[in-house]
Amino acid sequence: METYAVIMAGGVGSRFWPRSRERRPKQLLNILSEKTLIQNTRDRLDGLIPDKNVLVITNKLQAEQIQKQLPGIPAENIIAEPFGRNTAACIGLAAKIVEKRSPGAVMVVVPADHIIRDVPGFISILGKGIDFAREEKALVTIGIEPTRPETGYGYIQIEQNPFTDHIYKVSTFAEKPNFATAVRFVQSGDFFWNSGMFIWRSDVILEELALYLPETAKHLNELDSSVDNENFYPVLEEVYGKLKSISIDYGVMEKSTRVYLLKGSFSWSDVGSWEEIYNLEKKDDNGNVLEGKVFAEMVNDSYIYSPDIFTAVVGVDNVVVINTGDALLICRKDLSQEVKKVVEHLKLNNNSDIL
Amino acid sequence: METYAVIMAGGVGSRFWPRSRERRPKQLLNILSEKTLIQNTRDRLDGLIPDKNVLVITNKLQAEQIQKQLPGIPAENIIAEPFGRNTAACIGLAAKIVEKRSPGAVMVVVPADHIIRDVPGFISILGKGIDFAREEKALVTIGIEPTRPETGYGYIQIEQNPFTDHIYKVSTFAEKPNFATAVRFVQSGDFFWNSGMFIWRSDVILEELALYLPETAKHLNELDSSVDNENFYPVLEEVYGKLKSISIDYGVMEKSTRVYLLKGSFSWSDVGSWEEIYNLEKKDDNGNVLEGKVFAEMVNDSYIYSPDIFTAVVGVDNVVVINTGDALLICRKDLSQEVKKVVEHLKLNNNSDIL
Repeated sequence: METYAVIMAGGVGSRFWPRSRERRPKQLLNILSEKTLIQNTRDRLDGLIPDKNVLVITNKLQAEQIQKQLPGIPAENIIAEPFGRNTAACIGLAAKIVEKRSPGAVMVVVPADHIIRDVPGFISILGKGIDFAREEKALVTIGIEPTRPETGYGYIQIEQNPFTDHIYKVSTFAEKPNFATAVRFVQSGDFFWNSGMFIWRSDVILEELALYLPETAKHLNELDSSVDNENFYPVLEEVYGKLKSISIDYGVMEKSTRVYLLKGSFSWSDVGSWEEIYNLEKKDDNGNVLEGKVFAEMVNDSYIYSPDIFTAVVGVDNVVVINTGDALLICRKDLSQEVKKVVEHLKLNNNSDIL
Repeated sequence: METYAVIMAGGVGSRFWPRSRERRPKQLLNILSEKTLIQNTRDRLDGLIPDKNVLVITNKLQAEQIQKQLPGIPAENIIAEPFGRNTAACIGLAAKIVEKRSPGAVMVVVPADHIIRDVPGFISILGKGIDFAREEKALVTIGIEPTRPETGYGYIQIEQNPFTDHIYKVSTFAEKPNFATAVRFVQSGDFFWNSGMFIWRSDVILEELALYLPETAKHLNELDSSVDNENFYPVLEEVYGKLKSISIDYGVMEKSTRVYLLKGSFSWSDVGSWEEIYNLEKKDDNGNVLEGKVFAEMVNDSYIYSPDIFTAVVGVDNVVVINTGDALLICRKDLSQEVKKVVEHLKLNNNSDIL
């Protein structure tokens, strides 16, 4: 039986403005690497999954750029959603395509914009999950061992004893916690970060969608006859218009009895802010990450990126400076998630040329 | 007898980089005003001194731009020094021209890049100085009542009792003091800021140059036959090659027995740093001065200038941001004089396109 990769690349991520834009979201940027995040996401699965079995679910704004960045992926594998309808719709769509092409194939579902540097560790864990999902007809979610009381992630609690090697029964899903709760979660030892990566068979996830999101499953069935033919996009647009926007976690994972956690002990980050990129980068002796034409004097613990324009920074600490030439962000590093407010401001003011 | 203005506009001021450049120094910028500093300098003397009596001493890089900014000034009044030789040479040159055109005329010597907003107060004081210099054949230097223990200015000490209305005999010239000394100077009540503005007759300053800088005076005499004719610039270049670089304060004022201080009680600034401009600007409720396409959130007491490029600043206080599009400065406000180091760095790295 075949294995497919489903790369979810619909994000419009405003958290990396001004480097990220509506047409150039995070996954298309070369952050922390020569290659872009989506290129690294595909490369990590190389050897395990051939190009013809890699699906990318994205949107119209990004499809062309993704095809350029992943020239090996067949055009018919790059699917543009007519509009975003959250992960249940995205995954249901992918499952319909996989099930049509290779019934009962295992799907490895991964977001396009995560950073995983320990590729052998990742692949080794993945192998266990693929085998388990195939044989046990399980819904496998990859949980990451938490290294800090992060309040930006959801958590998954497991039962104390492993079900089998690296695989645990799930007892609860927990939303993003407050700091005190996050500390408690991390100290408990049985809470894991919800990575948003999943492994299951296409027939199994479709069964579970039919059980827990029957309306979604019913509408998706309308796609059956048009997958991989010329009616696909018109029908998809009609179907998506009827789907409700709900996450796969909320719609299926929190309800299904077939859910297992695969313990990911590799280092992982969903790089949600400039501060997180700073944390992952190599620093100089002053704790700075300086990229491009940058002169820094009496500057510490800062991330300064200015590939084209000469940028001089004097006497400031703990800042993020992103100078793309057509726009500039200067932000206290620990407030870097506030960049969303800048993007909101630009939207309100119809400043679409730099959005 | 006529009165002349001599506007000294040779400064290459690197303290306002990246707005100021070698070809666009501070005096040519519209800082704190719609007009540029040199335009305001000339305008202040309007009514007192006609265009034909205004000399501008500058250099080859700036002469053309100055003529554009001051279209009323006759071309033969805009003098380009072949290279800078400090104020004694500049003033000696100007005195030679004035003396040839109108022997014994009073010269009001002013730097092109100061800010004086109380024009009536300035003009009224100036009138007293012009009369005194003409009648008493005195060297008059304008001293400003200090409002803070500034360590960036030289100071002039006066004798306790006025010689006549607003005019004092000078007892000492003091170099830029350290902070403790500056505090003492300000508290004493008899120390004034050395503004670098002077009033004297052309024949008198030439006599004093002959007395205290005889070599300089001798070389300048070689200009006598070529002022206002076609040999002027070739001879000037030859003469300047022989002049030593010395300030008029050090070379003449500190030695002459004919020196008097004219008490300037008008507000005055030589705007030596971005911080000083910030201090002079009108602030918003957060203590910010925001000019151009600026979005500021959780920002206080900062000066942010970005006329063309959208600039977002989040969560920082007390900074100066100057975004000219082709270069960017981010600087802690109270370190804004350190911008000189940035300019030195650019010079060392031959980065002449943004110098």
